[in-house]
Amino acid sequence: MTQQSKELNEIGIINLIKAKFSTLPLHGAEGIGDDCAIIPINQEESFVITTDTLTEGSHFLMEKITPFDLGYKSLVSNFSDVLAMGAKAQFSFLALTIGKGVSDPWLGQFFDGYRSISQELNAPLLGGDTTTSPYSTTITITAIGRVKNSSIKRRSGAKAGDIIAICRPTGLSLAGLKLILANKRWYSEEEVKAINFHHHPTLLTEESLLLGESSEVTSMMDISDGIAKDLLHILKLSNVKAKIFIDNFPITNEIEYLCQTNGWDPAEIFFTSGEEYSPLITVSRDKFDSLNERYRSKFGRELLKIGVIEPTINNHSIEWIANDKQRERDYNGYIHTR
Amino acid sequence: MTQQSKELNEIGIINLIKAKFSTLPLHGAEGIGDDCAIIPINQEESFVITTDTLTEGSHFLMEKITPFDLGYKSLVSNFSDVLAMGAKAQFSFLALTIGKGVSDPWLGQFFDGYRSISQELNAPLLGGDTTTSPYSTTITITAIGRVKNSSIKRRSGAKAGDIIAICRPTGLSLAGLKLILANKRWYSEEEVKAINFHHHPTLLTEESLLLGESSEVTSMMDISDGIAKDLLHILKLSNVKAKIFIDNFPITNEIEYLCQTNGWDPAEIFFTSGEEYSPLITVSRDKFDSLNERYRSKFGRELLKIGVIEPTINNHSIEWIANDKQRERDYNGYIHTR
Repeated sequence: MTQQSKELNEIGIINLIKAKFSTLPLHGAEGIGDDCAIIPINQEESFVITTDTLTEGSHFLMEKITPFDLGYKSLVSNFSDVLAMGAKAQFSFLALTIGKGVSDPWLGQFFDGYRSISQELNAPLLGGDTTTSPYSTTITITAIGRVKNSSIKRRSGAKAGDIIAICRPTGLSLAGLKLILANKRWYSEEEVKAINFHHHPTLLTEESLLLGESSEVTSMMDISDGIAKDLLHILKLSNVKAKIFIDNFPITNEIEYLCQTNGWDPAEIFFTSGEEYSPLITVSRDKFDSLNERYRSKFGRELLKIGVIEPTINNHSIEWIANDKQRERDYNGYIHTR
Repeated sequence: MTQQSKELNEIGIINLIKAKFSTLPLHGAEGIGDDCAIIPINQEESFVITTDTLTEGSHFLMEKITPFDLGYKSLVSNFSDVLAMGAKAQFSFLALTIGKGVSDPWLGQFFDGYRSISQELNAPLLGGDTTTSPYSTTITITAIGRVKNSSIKRRSGAKAGDIIAICRPTGLSLAGLKLILANKRWYSEEEVKAINFHHHPTLLTEESLLLGESSEVTSMMDISDGIAKDLLHILKLSNVKAKIFIDNFPITNEIEYLCQTNGWDPAEIFFTSGEEYSPLITVSRDKFDSLNERYRSKFGRELLKIGVIEPTINNHSIEWIANDKQRERDYNGYIHTR
């Protein structure tokens, strides 16, 4: 007990848990591995449940985010996992550990932010626990959704030939984070927009529900650690690999401008931006156009293609393609510079 | 944001939440106020859900409790709330924030303890989140149970005339805590037993289920903050008051011995011991004997009477009675010495 665990990363801990708990019966539920666990209600419906923690120093800095945005974003990050299952947000439970530097007005504003997204989603806070810590503030939320069994989207359904798509261009969240950490004295209008998105991301609620109800969608998940990392979960659980096109990806002009002015690589920003809280999906190739047509007629925007799923025996990796050639990239943190 | 919230205690925060969230529809569920929230499955059954946090420095001291016991006790404290609703333990979700001083062996033993009670209750770990903190370790568990609607026990059902009872003598947990904090160089056999109970409390699973199924039981809750404090929740939600007998209460010889040798007031130990993880119930007076008979024939022990429920207009307090006279006591922390 002399040092913090270095060897066990999150994957290591999940494997430890799987090994220790594999013999316990699941009572018809589906457990660890997807955005949410699934607990059947009856033949037609299920609850989906997820738990996520934001802890001071690791996930947020008290002096950088307003209590309103922190309350809002904490719940967004949980319900985003619920939406990514194709489910409708229903209830939340909040375990709030109050650390040093938290005042009564802070708490009031935190709950105002929490309520604003609860109200938007019509999903009440149903219970929880408040505790104080002599150290730091930690927020753990359990979010519950309800879904028709026929609409449940898992990470395990991608098939060779499927098109990989997203609902909105990524990158703004990471751009915002980089700008926050840069501690600049002055931010441009575009930079403020990125920072605001990082602190106050919007959910694609109706879009996620439509994708859940659409049989063309073979897998869906939440973009929380960046496409480059998140897609690997779909690839592993679906036993497929992927090609992603880095010479022609749907980056916005505003993010491209931020990359130019700050000296960032646009592809890295686009494919590694986490906390995006929008869906990453795979779609049956020959049904993509009909899905896209329904999507466009409802939302006035198109689904954005970023790659394709390919068959594999045992290689669940991403091939990064530019000008029809494979490029060596490691977007789990950095780019090989050569 | 310069100091930790002093004004808002847990009740204050719950009232703040109630005020802010009262306008959101509950979709048929019951929220804040009882041991668990209740989410209906269908006409016959419901899920009950609770969230509880244990945080380093406030709820446990790393150097005082083994990781096995910490994993075990964290889950016990949550499923105890589930059992107190009359429900059967079903699933848990674990949000573990790993702070300084946590090693891989520590994690392995923590999960061994967590698994041992999961296995005992046949209630698998269904999901969660692991995060690291530069500060301290925090454990938040969401526990889910399943219950027939006819067996749900609330805090709000106590009626004037009911008998107040418990399933096992209280006091051992507080005795253990006092002994742990005393940092003695040497502990007697009886003292070690109390310390062990505080770190590794047992659940009364079958007892709770029987009480849930028994219509004689009008209200039930988990003893987590001590009878003197917990009973107030039943009194308020049931709009009744109570008489508790402090001249004749079912203390065990071993706890009385610990009180004698350590100079503690037995009644204070008995009525303020928290983390007992056993049920506090009210029972219809004229049906107590038949319930007690069923209870004894199944478990070989009797229910233990500690007081009676009385009518009130608006006073939800406890009268402490000795030799048929009311005595002034404030067991929310200390005894008025006079």
